[in-house]
This record gives sequence, C-alpha cells and structure tokens, in this order.
Amino acid sequence: MTAPLASLDVLEPEAIRRSVDDALADFLTEKDRAATQPHLPYLSGLVRDFLSGGKRIRPLLCVTGWQAVGGVENAGPVFRVAACLEMFHAFALIHDDVMDLSDTRRGRPTVHRTLAAQHASCRSPDEVEWFGMSAAVLLGDLALTWSDELLHWAGLEPAQLAAVLPLVSQMRTELMLGQYLDLHATGGLTDDVEATLNVYRYKTAKYTIERPLHVGAAIAGAGPEAMAAFTAYALPLGEAFQLRDDLLGVYGDPLVTGKSRLDDLRAGKNTTLTALALRAADKRQDATLRRLLGDPLLDEEGAGVVRGIFEAVHARETVERMIDDRQQQALGALDDAPFTADAVGALKRIARMATARNS
Amino acid sequence: MTAPLASLDVLEPEAIRRSVDDALADFLTEKDRAATQPHLPYLSGLVRDFLSGGKRIRPLLCVTGWQAVGGVENAGPVFRVAACLEMFHAFALIHDDVMDLSDTRRGRPTVHRTLAAQHASCRSPDEVEWFGMSAAVLLGDLALTWSDELLHWAGLEPAQLAAVLPLVSQMRTELMLGQYLDLHATGGLTDDVEATLNVYRYKTAKYTIERPLHVGAAIAGAGPEAMAAFTAYALPLGEAFQLRDDLLGVYGDPLVTGKSRLDDLRAGKNTTLTALALRAADKRQDATLRRLLGDPLLDEEGAGVVRGIFEAVHARETVERMIDDRQQQALGALDDAPFTADAVGALKRIARMATARNS
Repeated sequence: MTAPLASLDVLEPEAIRRSVDDALADFLTEKDRAATQPHLPYLSGLVRDFLSGGKRIRPLLCVTGWQAVGGVENAGPVFRVAACLEMFHAFALIHDDVMDLSDTRRGRPTVHRTLAAQHASCRSPDEVEWFGMSAAVLLGDLALTWSDELLHWAGLEPAQLAAVLPLVSQMRTELMLGQYLDLHATGGLTDDVEATLNVYRYKTAKYTIERPLHVGAAIAGAGPEAMAAFTAYALPLGEAFQLRDDLLGVYGDPLVTGKSRLDDLRAGKNTTLTALALRAADKRQDATLRRLLGDPLLDEEGAGVVRGIFEAVHARETVERMIDDRQQQALGALDDAPFTADAVGALKRIARMATARNS
Repeated sequence: MTAPLASLDVLEPEAIRRSVDDALADFLTEKDRAATQPHLPYLSGLVRDFLSGGKRIRPLLCVTGWQAVGGVENAGPVFRVAACLEMFHAFALIHDDVMDLSDTRRGRPTVHRTLAAQHASCRSPDEVEWFGMSAAVLLGDLALTWSDELLHWAGLEPAQLAAVLPLVSQMRTELMLGQYLDLHATGGLTDDVEATLNVYRYKTAKYTIERPLHVGAAIAGAGPEAMAAFTAYALPLGEAFQLRDDLLGVYGDPLVTGKSRLDDLRAGKNTTLTALALRAADKRQDATLRRLLGDPLLDEEGAGVVRGIFEAVHARETVERMIDDRQQQALGALDDAPFTADAVGALKRIARMATARNS
C-alpha cells in the first residue's frame, strides 16, 4: 500500500507548497492573458498578492489525504484541486476582513484597506471607506468564482469530480454557517461552552482540516472507512487547534505570535476560554469579567485582572486539558486508520504542530 | 426544425416561470431537509423570500435560447440550469444592495435591512447595522455557492456540462467586472459616453441577455453561428434596455415605475444620459449640472433645471435615438438567425418589451 519514494517526496511540505503555488500562478497568468478588460489584471494582481502570504495548510492536508489512501500517480490534478481550496480560502479571508473591519492581515493592509488607499483621490473619506469595502466584497466574489474554475479545470476524471463536488459544496456551506454562527454570537458574552465549540467545529475542524483531507482522499477513491478515520482525526484536532488559538490570543508572546494579547479581550471575543471562565465565575468575578471583556480601551493592567480570574476559576487549565484530550483523540484515530505509513507520520507531525505551537 | 406544440408550451413565459420556481423550491426544500444546523433553514428562508420577488428574465432567456436552437425534449435539466442563473442573480443583488447601501428592493426591505432588524436586541445601532451588512454578505456567498450546486445537480450530460461551464464562468466574471467598473466610476461625474456604455455592456447586455441565451443554447449543442447570432441580438438590446432605464430614472412616472424620479439624480449616477449632457453642455450648463447632479437634497425644482438642460443639449433625444437604433439592430440580427420561428417570435416580443417599456 505504501509507495516509499514518490510519496515521501510528495509529502514534503515545501514541495507541496511549491506545486500548489505553481498551479495558482498558472491559473492567474492565464486569466491575465485572456483578459479583455484592463481592470482584470489589476484585480488578479490583488488576488495574487493576497495569496502570497498564505501558509497553504488546506492544500497540504488535501495532498496528504490523497496520499494517505494510496494516491501516488498523476498528482497534477491533486495540486490544482488543492489550489482551488487555497483560492476559496482567499475568498473567505477577504470577506472575513470586511466583516471584521480589520485593518491588517498577515502583517499587511487588508484588501479593503489597499483598495481604499488606491482610490482615495476625488472622494470623501466616507466614500473611500465605502469604495474599499465594496470593491473587497467584489474581489472576494471573484476569488470564489475562480476557486470554482480551478476545480473544473483541474483535470479530474468524471468519477473523481463527481466524488469531490459534494464535499466541496459541503465545505463551503459549513464555512459559511460557521461564519454565521460566529457573527450571530457577537454582541454579547456567552457562558455556553458547547456553542463556542460548535463554532470551532464548523469554522476550523470541518473547514480547515476534515474537508481538505476528504477532498484529497476522494480523488484517490477513498471508501467510507477511510473517510470516517479522517473525520475521527480531524474534528478533535481542529478543536484543539482553535483552543490553542484562544490561549495564544490571551497568553501568547506578541513577539512570537505577531498579534497583540489585548485584541481578543478588547473585542469581547466569545471563546471557549471566556465561556468556561464565565460559567465558573462567582458573582463578583462575573461582574468584573463582563465589565472588562469587550472594553475597547482595556489596558495591560485590566488584562492582568482578566487573566487572574481565568486562572483562579481554572479556565486556562481546563482549556489546556481539553487540548491534550483532543490531541490524544486525534493521534489515537490514526492507530487503526487505513492510511499509508508516510501519511500517518505526516498527520502525526501536523497534529503535534497544531496543538503545541506558540504562534 | 420547429416543434410546434411542445415548444409553444415551453415558450409561454408563465409556464417557464412556474417550472423555474419549482426547481428553486425543490432545491431549497432539499437543503432544509438535509440541514444539520438549525440556522440553515432560517438562512434558506431569507433566500426563498428574496427569490420570490424576481421577474425571472434570465431564466426566460435561457430557456428561449435552448428552444431557439432546437431544444425540445428533456427540459428538466434546462429549467434547473435556468434556476441556477436566478440563484446567481439573487447573490448579485444581495451583494449589490450591500454595496449601494440600499434600504429597499422590489418594494421590500433589503436583505441586510431585514437581517439587521431581526437581530436588533442586545446590540447598539452601529452593531446592528454592521451585523446586517456582514450577514448579508454571507447570505450572498451562500446563494453563489447554491447557484453552483444547482448547476452541478441539474442533470446535464457530461458534454452539455462541459459546454455550459465556461459560459457560466464568463458570465460571472463579466458581471463582477461590470460591478467593479460601476464602482470605479462613482465619486465623480463623467462625460465619457463610451465608458458608461461599457458598464451597460458588462452589467446588462452580456450578463442579463447574451450569457443566459448562450447557456441555454449550449445545452442544446448550439454551434458558433447560432452563438454569434445571439450576441448580435443581445448586445444592442442590452444597451437599449439600460438606456431606457436611464430615461425612466429621470422622466418615468413614479406611479408606474415604482421608483422616485430624483434618486438617480441625487446619487449623481453616471449614465449615458448624463455623460451625453455633460459632453454637449456649454460652460454655464456644465457648472449647473455639476452643482445639481449628486446633490442629496435635490428637489423637484432642481430636477426640473437638470431635465431642462438634458433637453436643451438634446441628450434625451439622443438617448431615444440610440435606443431605436439598438432595437433595430437587435431585431435585424434575428432576420437570418438560425433559430426556430417560435423563438424568433419570442425574442422579438422580448426586444420590444425591453425597449418600449414604461416601468
């Protein structure tokens, strides 16, 4: 079942990234070549810049999923499908930044900020803001359409395409539902731990891990047993990944994470960590948390008070334990999984990186 | 080549609308049935409500295109593809309303307004506004994804799907480019008549008329000659349709059009009418137009001054002549077109309705 050399090459993360980047570059170059409208190369250039900052996690998992169930030959279409997932992710992040009114992404101005800045002449500040947002919504729409085209022109056999399409549809709907659940939860703090985990399940576990593995595996013709094993690995791992994110947002080293430790607290972001703390807090702690969480002017001192309560009520500790449990579950799911040995190795490395990371 | 009875039935607009509505209803019912998440039926309900107000112009043209080149049997997949175009249009309008910050659509609150109103508790007015916009962007994304699913599950033969996919991709990109051109042109008045016509070409002529005809025709296996004839009919007709819209926006009877005659003028909308007027205006007329167009407080008296200049510089007259010319071109393109007699009749009726309408 294993195919040592070829598969080892394929599972080398840098090699996968390069192949996916090539597929993306080829696609966008072809778009520019066929453009009948001078604005198109400008827009495709924005998409190209945006894509250049990505970590390619989903493509990596897609190719690993394919290899895990015996995919070895004819990797070209797999890389193009993996590229389609990355283009879809570009769409999701561009729209997400509009919804979050974020100013930066990956250390650079967000797309709506870039578009606004490049069209600032002849317009009032309000109009510039509005132009940036509107054009970013459109650019996201274009990326979504292109993600679709990448899938159609990937060169899959009809049976492969028929296996992949329902999974891609589910992945899209799940992400959008996750985003909606997330939006819906804003505007008030919750102590509903299960609700916060549900958002993680849709936005991270299914969208980022399970479906990319499934899509890759479907190309190699995986059966229900393999699909179930991917799910058993992906769902706990995705939750653990997001729980680690919660902790890094509050306790991470800004020099390593590149993110302020105050943003999540100032935004009053509903996380499993805050929900656990609110659930375990006594009356006075609850009042303090509700006063400080979501305060846009929260300073390091106030954040210290919040962190103190998180620790006093054992919320931080509980999240660490939840991460451990989930990492064990994910690794355990690989024990009897019908996957190639190389892929099991790669999936174990991914599970450790995703949960033990410090950035 | 003609198939009298079956095709006459098929070309009856009400029958087409009913069949397309059934396809949309079936699709959304199936979505609700398969939902694992309680928010999904809420979101699909919003899409369902939104769709209920549409005129089904694109589906009508899609089915007509199919019949025009000899499509007779197995109309089911054609109606489902036509439904996919309507779902795509729902996406486009939902995002368009976000970008235009519109409060009403088809006499009802826009989607972002509805979403905002239904989530007003526990939030500040700014947050409510933001929630509505964000959720509407997401709902549009969902409609775009569903439009794709409708296409994939339409039941087309592989060869039909292969013929349709590139056309649908082009249609989407053209619409998005048209929207971008439109956005790009805001923020200043233009006397560039050709630029305004270019927006009409992308947003209306190609998106609303040419591509729906092409998509339908591709299902019936149309060759290049038929495709070229559809283009020759669609492009002038689309421009004429939009030029009529310009005139109705300024001169229409609000009781018949359902729209204020001041909105376009107050918004300073760049139309071929305004571009022609600015190009022909003398210095004083130019200054007056630039002072009044885009004034959000413009009243009927100011609008009267604008209309007076439009007439003095013959801009209104020129637009009427451009409509006539284009209607003649569109009708002329049908003379030697390789289409069924029934379809030619239907396309002639559509051309007259689209250009001579008063609402």
